[in-house]
This record gives sequence, C-alpha cells and structure tokens, in this order.
Amino acid sequence: MDERLAHAIRFLAVDAILKAGEGHQGVPLGMAEIATALFTRHLKFNPKDPLWPDRDRFVVSNGHGSMLLYALLHLTGYEKISLSQVQSFRELGSHCAGHPEYDPAAGIETTTGPLGQGIANALGMAIAEARLRARFGAKIVDHMTYAFVGDGCLQEGVGQEVISLAGHLRLGHLVFVWDSNEITDDGATSLSISENVAERFRVAGWHVLEVDGHDIEAVSDALADVRKDDRPSLIACRTTIAKGIRRLEGQRGGHSGKLIDSDRDEMAGTLSWPATPFAIPNEVAATWLDAGTRSQAEYDAWRRRAATLDGADRASFERTIAGHLPEGWRDVTSTYKARSIVERKPAYSIETSGEVASALYDVIPDIMTCCADLEAPTNHKRQLAAFTAGDNRGRYVHCGVREHAMGALANGMAAHGGIIPLAVTYLAFADYERPAMRMAALMGLPVKFIFSHDSIGIGKNGPTHQPVEILASLRAMPNMLVFRPADAAEMAECWEIMLEHATGPVSLVCARQMLPQQRSDASRENSSRRGAYVLAEAEGTRRVTLLATGSEVALAIEARAILQAKGIPTAVVSMPCWELFELQDEGYRASVLGAGTARVGVEAAMKFGWERWLGDDGAFVGMTGFGASGPADALYRHFNITADAIVTAALALL
Amino acid sequence: MDERLAHAIRFLAVDAILKAGEGHQGVPLGMAEIATALFTRHLKFNPKDPLWPDRDRFVVSNGHGSMLLYALLHLTGYEKISLSQVQSFRELGSHCAGHPEYDPAAGIETTTGPLGQGIANALGMAIAEARLRARFGAKIVDHMTYAFVGDGCLQEGVGQEVISLAGHLRLGHLVFVWDSNEITDDGATSLSISENVAERFRVAGWHVLEVDGHDIEAVSDALADVRKDDRPSLIACRTTIAKGIRRLEGQRGGHSGKLIDSDRDEMAGTLSWPATPFAIPNEVAATWLDAGTRSQAEYDAWRRRAATLDGADRASFERTIAGHLPEGWRDVTSTYKARSIVERKPAYSIETSGEVASALYDVIPDIMTCCADLEAPTNHKRQLAAFTAGDNRGRYVHCGVREHAMGALANGMAAHGGIIPLAVTYLAFADYERPAMRMAALMGLPVKFIFSHDSIGIGKNGPTHQPVEILASLRAMPNMLVFRPADAAEMAECWEIMLEHATGPVSLVCARQMLPQQRSDASRENSSRRGAYVLAEAEGTRRVTLLATGSEVALAIEARAILQAKGIPTAVVSMPCWELFELQDEGYRASVLGAGTARVGVEAAMKFGWERWLGDDGAFVGMTGFGASGPADALYRHFNITADAIVTAALALL
Repeated sequence: MDERLAHAIRFLAVDAILKAGEGHQGVPLGMAEIATALFTRHLKFNPKDPLWPDRDRFVVSNGHGSMLLYALLHLTGYEKISLSQVQSFRELGSHCAGHPEYDPAAGIETTTGPLGQGIANALGMAIAEARLRARFGAKIVDHMTYAFVGDGCLQEGVGQEVISLAGHLRLGHLVFVWDSNEITDDGATSLSISENVAERFRVAGWHVLEVDGHDIEAVSDALADVRKDDRPSLIACRTTIAKGIRRLEGQRGGHSGKLIDSDRDEMAGTLSWPATPFAIPNEVAATWLDAGTRSQAEYDAWRRRAATLDGADRASFERTIAGHLPEGWRDVTSTYKARSIVERKPAYSIETSGEVASALYDVIPDIMTCCADLEAPTNHKRQLAAFTAGDNRGRYVHCGVREHAMGALANGMAAHGGIIPLAVTYLAFADYERPAMRMAALMGLPVKFIFSHDSIGIGKNGPTHQPVEILASLRAMPNMLVFRPADAAEMAECWEIMLEHATGPVSLVCARQMLPQQRSDASRENSSRRGAYVLAEAEGTRRVTLLATGSEVALAIEARAILQAKGIPTAVVSMPCWELFELQDEGYRASVLGAGTARVGVEAAMKFGWERWLGDDGAFVGMTGFGASGPADALYRHFNITADAIVTAALALL
Repeated sequence: MDERLAHAIRFLAVDAILKAGEGHQGVPLGMAEIATALFTRHLKFNPKDPLWPDRDRFVVSNGHGSMLLYALLHLTGYEKISLSQVQSFRELGSHCAGHPEYDPAAGIETTTGPLGQGIANALGMAIAEARLRARFGAKIVDHMTYAFVGDGCLQEGVGQEVISLAGHLRLGHLVFVWDSNEITDDGATSLSISENVAERFRVAGWHVLEVDGHDIEAVSDALADVRKDDRPSLIACRTTIAKGIRRLEGQRGGHSGKLIDSDRDEMAGTLSWPATPFAIPNEVAATWLDAGTRSQAEYDAWRRRAATLDGADRASFERTIAGHLPEGWRDVTSTYKARSIVERKPAYSIETSGEVASALYDVIPDIMTCCADLEAPTNHKRQLAAFTAGDNRGRYVHCGVREHAMGALANGMAAHGGIIPLAVTYLAFADYERPAMRMAALMGLPVKFIFSHDSIGIGKNGPTHQPVEILASLRAMPNMLVFRPADAAEMAECWEIMLEHATGPVSLVCARQMLPQQRSDASRENSSRRGAYVLAEAEGTRRVTLLATGSEVALAIEARAILQAKGIPTAVVSMPCWELFELQDEGYRASVLGAGTARVGVEAAMKFGWERWLGDDGAFVGMTGFGASGPADALYRHFNITADAIVTAALALL
C-alpha cells in the first residue's frame, strides 16, 4: 500500500500538470516516496485545524514542485485544497497556484519559488519554535520544521548562509530533506558544482543521513533518527527526477519538460493505476485520509495541556499566537514622543530608533531582533540576551554578515507566528536582503526591516555605503511601507504605525547623523499616520511648499526661514511615509501638497519617483548619481543639497 | 628589514586614520606581514605601468581595510597614490577614499566594501585570465589573481557561491588570503559561526594552507606553494586584529574603534618608529620602492614576447585588451534589423535576443556568457562551448543557481579587461544579482545584464516569477541603462547600443511571450538610440500620445487603431530606454511626448517613475500590485492591461 500512496501523489501531479498544460513534474515524481514517509508516519498536523499552533511546519523550498504540496494537502483532507482546486492548478484564482502561495489555513506555510527562500524561512520557523518553547514550555510548544529542498536552493548563497547559521545555532528541530536528483533546469548539476554537499553540511555542524529517496522505509527510519539528534539534520535522499515517467526519468527534461498523454498512459499501465485522470483507487484515497487524522490524539492531548495553562500564561500564549500586541504598549511611543517634544534635543536618528525599540522590547516580549553585524538602530545587542545554541530564551539573533538569510528567516518567524521579527542592517545592504523583502511584501508578512546609515550623511565611508537609489527601489515595491522619520517625535510615531501594521512588511530608514527636534506641538495625534503633513505652515498665503523627508526636513526648515525673511510665505511638509500619504483622500493630499504653490522636493537621494509629488513644474534638490567619500558636511555642499540651494530652486519657480 | 617593511604599512595606515579622524585599522595592522610577503616577493606588477595587461590582479575584498591598499600602492611607487593623497585619506576628492574605488591606473583593480563582492570579482578576473590564456597563449597571458578576504566576505552568501564555483572550475591561478582574526564588527565571529572555514574550502575542492599571518616567511612559503597547485588556493592566515596597538589587539574595537594619539605613540615606541606622522625611515622607503621594481625583468620579457606575436594575433590581442570591438560587427545588428523589418514575423522576444546574441558571438570573440541556470535570451548554451575545469577555451560559464556570484564575477571579468561579459537570468531574480549590478554601475563597468521573463506575461508560474517593480528599481539606479525592446528591430538596435556603451552597465529586459514586428521603416538609423521615438504618428493633429515599452507597445498600437477609428488622432511612442531619452534635448523630448496631448503610459509593471513622462494629467495602464498565477492572456485581462483599457483611459482625458 505505501507504494500506492506515493503513486497517488504522482498521478495527481501528472494529471494536474497535463490539464494545466505546463508545470514541474520533477519534484512530485521524484519525492513521492519521501513525502509519503513524512506525511503518513511523522508529520504532526491536523487538516481540520490547519492553524494548530503546535503543528509541525512543512516547507517546499523547491517551490516549483508545488503539485507535490497540493497533492499531499488534498489527499490528507485540507478543505481548501479540494479536487476542483487541484484540477484548476495554475488557473487564475486557484489555491493551487504555479508556485505555493502563503495560506496557512490551506496548509501552505510560506510562498516559495525563488530558490533558497524556503529553507531560510524554515530556519526562521525553527528559531521561532525554539524561542517560543523556551518562553512557554515544551508542553505547549514542541514541534518540528521540515523543509524539502532541491539542488538549486543549496547552490544559492542564501541557502549556504542558512546552512552555516542553522548549524551554528544547533537547531535540533530543523530537518532538511534533500531531493538529490543531480538535475537542475540547466541540466546535470555536475555542470556547476563538484563539492560533496552532504559533507558541506557536516562541516557546518549538521547531522547528516544519506538514504535512497525511493525507499519509504529507509526515509522513514531517517525521519525517526533525526528526532534523536540535537543538531539540525539533513536527510540526503538519492532520487531519480521524474521517477515513473520512463521518457523523462533522470533527464533534464524531467524537471519541467512538457508532458504528453502517452507519458501518463504508460505510467498508469506500469503502476496499475486508473486510466481516468484524477481518479484515485478508493482504498488509496481512504488510507491517505486516515493519514490526515494521524495526529488527532496528539492534537487532543495538546489541547488538554493548553487548557491546563494557568490564566496569565494562557492569555499570554493566546495573545502572542494571535499576533495581538499587549495592552498599553502605545504608552511607550506616546511617552517617548511627548518627552522628545518637551526636551527638543538634537539626537542621532539611529539612537532615537534604538531608544524607542528598546522601550518597546520591554513591554512586547514577542519581539525578536535579527541582526547582520550591526546593532545601532535597535540598540538591542546591549540589551537583549542572544539566542544561542545553548540558550533559546534569548531574543537577539546574531545573524552574522548574512543579510539575505536574515531577511528570509525573519519572514519565516513571521509566518510561523508568535514572533514579531525585526531585521537590522545598513540601508546600503538592503539590496542583499531585497529578495527576502520582496517575499515579505508578496506574502503580506509583518516583518520590520530596520536600516541605518541612510544617505550621503554617513560621509567618509563613501559611495559603496551611501544609498542614493535604495529609497526609490523600496518605494517601488508593492505592499511595502517605507518610513523615513525626520526627528525623534516622528520616530516614535513611525514605530507605532509599524507595530500596528499587520498586513505587510515595513522598512524604517534611519539617518546616521544628528537631527534637530522639529515637532513642537503637544498634540497626541500621530501625524505620521497620514504619511505626510504640514510640519510648518506658511506665514501668510502659502506661495512655496517644501516637501522633504528624514534628515532633509531640517534643511527645508532652514530654507523656509530664509524664504519667509524674503517675504515669501513658505510651508514645510514632512513626508515620513509616501505609501500612507497615497492612501489619503484627494482633498487632504491637495491641501498638504499646496496645489498652485511652487513645490520643491528635498531628499538626499535620486529624484526617481518624486515627480508624483512635484508635478510638472516642481523642482528637486537631491542627488543625481552616486555619492562620494568625504565628510558629510562637505558632501552636502558638494552635491548642492543645502538650504541655499532649496531657496534658489524655489525662487526660480516663482 | 622585512618586519620594518610591514611596520611602514602599519604606520601609514594609523597616521592616515588618525588624520582622517576615522577609518578601519584592523586590516592594515593585521595583514601588514601578509601584504609585505605578497608585494615584496610574489606579486607581478609594475607601478610605472599599472595597466600592464599581464600583471597579477590584487583585490582587497575586505575593502574597509582600504589603507592597507593605499599604503602598498604608495610605498611601491604608484604615482597616483602620492603622499598627499594618503594624507587626504577619506577627504572629498582624494584617490584614497574610504573604501577603494575602481581606478586601475592607480593600482585599484576594483571597488570593494560591500562584503563578498571583491572575492567574486576576483573569481571573474581569474576566469578572464584563464580564458584569455587559452585564447592567446601563456606566453602573453599568464598571471595570478590574489584576493585578501576577511571573515565577513566568507559569511556572505555570495562568498559561499564563489567558493563553490571556483572550486568547481578549478581555477589554479586564483588565491584567497584569509585574514582569520576571528573578529567582525559585531564582535567575536563565534557569535555567528562555528564551522571550520578552511574545511569548507576543502570540501569545495580548494587547496588550503594554514599559516601564521604574522610570519612573513611562512606566508611567503605558502604563496610559493600555491603556484604549484592546479586548484584555487586558500591561505588561511591566523592573525591578530589591530596588531601593533596594544589597546585594541584582538578586540572588537580593533576593527574600526577610534584611534587616539597615544596608540600611535606607544606603537612608535615599541616598534622604534619615527615620532613624526607619515615619516618613513629612508632605508625602509627605499626598500619598498625597490619592491615596486621587482617585476621589471618580467615586464621587459613580456614586452619582448608580445612584440614577437604575429601581426594578426598581436592586433587581435591589442584590440581585445583595449576593449575595442572588431570591425564590421555592426553588420550583424543592421542585417538582423533589416531582415526583421522585411519579414515582419511575430517572434518570441527572448528568441530574438538569442538570435542577435548568437550572431554577435560569431564576430566578437571577446564575449563570454555567464548563466545562472537559464539560457534563453542569449541562446548561448546551445552554441558556445562551456568554460570548464578541464577546458578554458569555452566561453559559456555555467554559474549554477548563483545569480549574485554570477553578476559579481561578470564585474570582475569586465574589470580585468579583454572580456565582454553577459550575465543572464530571469528578471524576477535580478534582485538576487542587484548588489553586483549596483557595483557595476558605481564602477562604470560595461557589463551586459540580460533578463528574460519580464512581466506577468510569463503567466502561470505566478507572482514570485513576475517582476512588477523590478523595472522601476533598475531605472532608479544611477548609471544603469535599462532596455526593454518592443520587437525584433528594436532588439537589434538595443544590442547595438549595449555593445557600444562602454561607460557603465546595461540591463536588457526581454519578454517571454511572442511579440509582433512593429517597425516597418527601412531606415538605417537606430531609433532606439534616442531612448524613445514616435513609432506611429497620429493621422491628423495629434490629440493622444500613448507611451509604451516592450510587450505593451503592441497593445498601444491596437488602442491607436481603435482611437483613430473613432476619429481621435493618436500617436504611439515606443520607449525602449528611458535613460537615453532623458539625455535628449528638450525640443526632441517635447515633440515625442506630445506636449498638450492626452498622455497614457502603458507598461505591465508598477507606475512608479512613470510620472516623469505622464505629467500631472496623464493616465497609466499597468500594474498596481503583485501579479498572479494564471494564463498570460487571462492575467492581462484580469489586471486590465488591454487595448480597451488604454482607449478608455485616453478618452477619459479628452
């Protein structure tokens, strides 16, 4: 029967791919036995309650093999993955998309496809599980994270970062199951890799087992063994790509070469399978549905244990898993904002961010900080205990100089639930992290990407470290809120909004340099919530509107003083978040932007994208290319980003 | 004396950093002996002719240690790195920038700083050397590539990709010298890594030697040994960060903690060095200058050998090294263009690119194609022999699923000279490569980044594989030309411009789908050269201007027909390259954009950036968020990117 269970995966996949006219059969055919071993004997899951917090997490990192996942979810009884969904594989609106799309209620734990992201998500899930286990106890949190992985994921740099970091953190509940079929889209893996991949894992401190991936017993034994080791485990499975379709087995075309009806016919003949597409022998279907109830006793026991948690712990656990913030957390941001307005002290932008983050950390135990060799804008290293191999109570993950893995594991933490992940590095290195940021935006995960050193204001480290185009590139990303606060009050406001924002990621961009406190109103309203607002209204009927963000707001305020002294009524608009401003009604936007006034945008970055706010006639004071190495003051003068330049630009428009 | 030579590096670095008020002393102090061994005994170089084609290449991948490089270049007599330049370290305009900035005439072979890029560049240089050696013979090309590398570079995913690929390609002329000081900016490396890094290299097929990095003899012996091995070599040097400054030795602060005068005073006392900043004992300075002439005999011999090349070979070598294209190459693009205009056949955009690239390859032997598991838009895999461990004559580098390393090694090829590198992948994975693309733009390297699958037009693979924001993010990058051709004629024109463009990188973005041939004029003029042009003028006085790129030009043409039929004179403007259009004079731009007409932009991508062309009143037909999984036709309808939608948008403006 076990072999028949595996064949059910094969035929569902092939039938769906034939119906869709395209797809990737290599993984579902090659990993059918592996998946059968995992889902029928080891995985802890409950298709009737897909969101069970203590379920094992399962990630298909080789996401092109999505039909493997859909077949498993369908066969084990996930309601959202009905037969009609499988039959509409790759059609618009189907839950069975070309690549798996994050939908935990359907059993899809993360979006995968871009290679390496999935295993990095899995690493983040395993960290989240370990931290929550340390926090709430193993009787309530104690599950595994399994990731299926192909050769491509392991060639990607982000995959290599993951191997190194997971081994270092000794995450015993993390298991990668490698589909070692020696084929990528390009052909034989020997075209591009010679190393012994299993050995590479061993060097990184992993527990490695090597088995025949088509031997269900061997795979199952390995899956049992890995539970006994306190290191992360790799089960290296020798497999044949496209196993079952004679024409494509072990071939490059096995990956996603077009299937033809005779492939299916021949396989059905050989494997004694019904000729009708999507038909599954009754006893096979029933056995699969039974597998879907395999964890029922564990599930019930877990619920009983959860019910015995004492009141405070239970409330805390439930709040955390639900992703709700603890009551009263906003006192932190409002207190910080009020104090900054009273004190009116210039402050380093990264330090104000660090102060707010530190205060939030005290009241929100769900926060974990992931850091790629830089601590400043959260200040957490000095404050948070590290999450280490020996102690999972820590909330600070030293990610090393591995920005890409950091971003992707933060995604995994958020997808796991129970953790609010911050990921911290220099803005110049946002590009290293960007593929993960895109996935957070696509999945709508509430990850907080925190960046320091946001412009030429960093000075002498030079253009490699001076972002000039990165603000624009982040603003261009759908579903990403980009914040660039101008002072400590805005910083507190932006953190408040960032924590509230649960439907997607945010990027917070902090200046390295000291910024004067601008806001003086004692209003309790969070002005940043509207994305942009009039920070200083014109005295007299407004003729000029200066639009600025972050560190350049101070220059705009200086320029305003000069223009006002010349008798030109000038307003300054601070724009901490374009995306939120875009959501405001037309009337508010027009009142802020000052329709009919001369508009000058000011930002120490490229103009790209600013046209939206400046209109046909506006001017821009900012960068026109990469920066340079020199003192920050000299650079601002050299690139002509000064109050005088703003004044000149405004006068030219009048 | 050898120790004194090393100390000269130490003091120059410390004096410059003290004068600048900041800098990274860790590398120059920790690698002073290593650098001395390399530069005084092994490196083949000529400060009087820094561009000598057969010089060894030297890369400081741990680029924050820039003062190590400047000290070496100054001491060995590179004219551009004079004492006054060293004394203006980190000041605006100095050749001694905070991080090394590409200037081969000054001895700076590549820009480094963002970690991992330098060693990836070095890999590309070694591939370039091997290919040119196979092409022109070892008597004229036979040099080493050395890269200094810190812990950070080796943690980065791109670094790991490089280790794996270099081992696979068995590049015997590539040597990494690892500054193993066990400290990164974050503190001890043990915070974030446990693996045996040397062993990781061995697994990847490297020759590994482990030595005391402060023992000049031991390092020198290792540098001699690595020449005898046909594998790439790692010399793992145990070092003490900030060696020489008692207060900081082996400390986290050794990396870049602020130096104080007493550090220098104490070091001068201990090491018997002049108290005056920048003073170098005469005999030390003279010995260093002698080291700068060490390769003179080799240099002279090389010139003699070069002179004996036969006429054709010599001309070919000189042309190649000068970066000039062979005569007559434009016949390829003009013939292809002319044929496509005559034939007027619909064609897959990636195939037209592949055809042009293939034809160019036949006449330009300098082209090498680097490919991350995808061949389509150059078609080179079917045509070019692979560059392999056993045969360096090949021109196709199977990079594996390692986009980041691919981009950065292509940069290294371009920086080396003699190679025109193409780097090929899906546009969705441009983000993986982006940090390298930024470095190409910053350095002004003529790398051709080629992308396929440029929009929702790929269909069923879904939003992970559908770029919607990537065009904008590339257009936001300074010094990057982004091409999106609309048909086969534009494709030929764009390739022509791309090959001519020598001052920076280009990105060519190709649709997956079939595009009708639009151009019908037999003009020999390259219309794409102006970035945008009127493809179809209005019949009658223009009232509507439709601006489109790539695959959406066809939709604009359809919409034009409908509008014209309604009696509304409508022009279609094709905009294959915004950046070139931006360079045109105001008059041309206004005539193309149709000042005063109703403007509609059409692109299957986010609007971000389009405001520049659409003005206050223009409309946009395109994407407003991520894509979806479904057939391409259905997606275009679902997202309302259709001729009818364009017509509706245009009518609403009239």
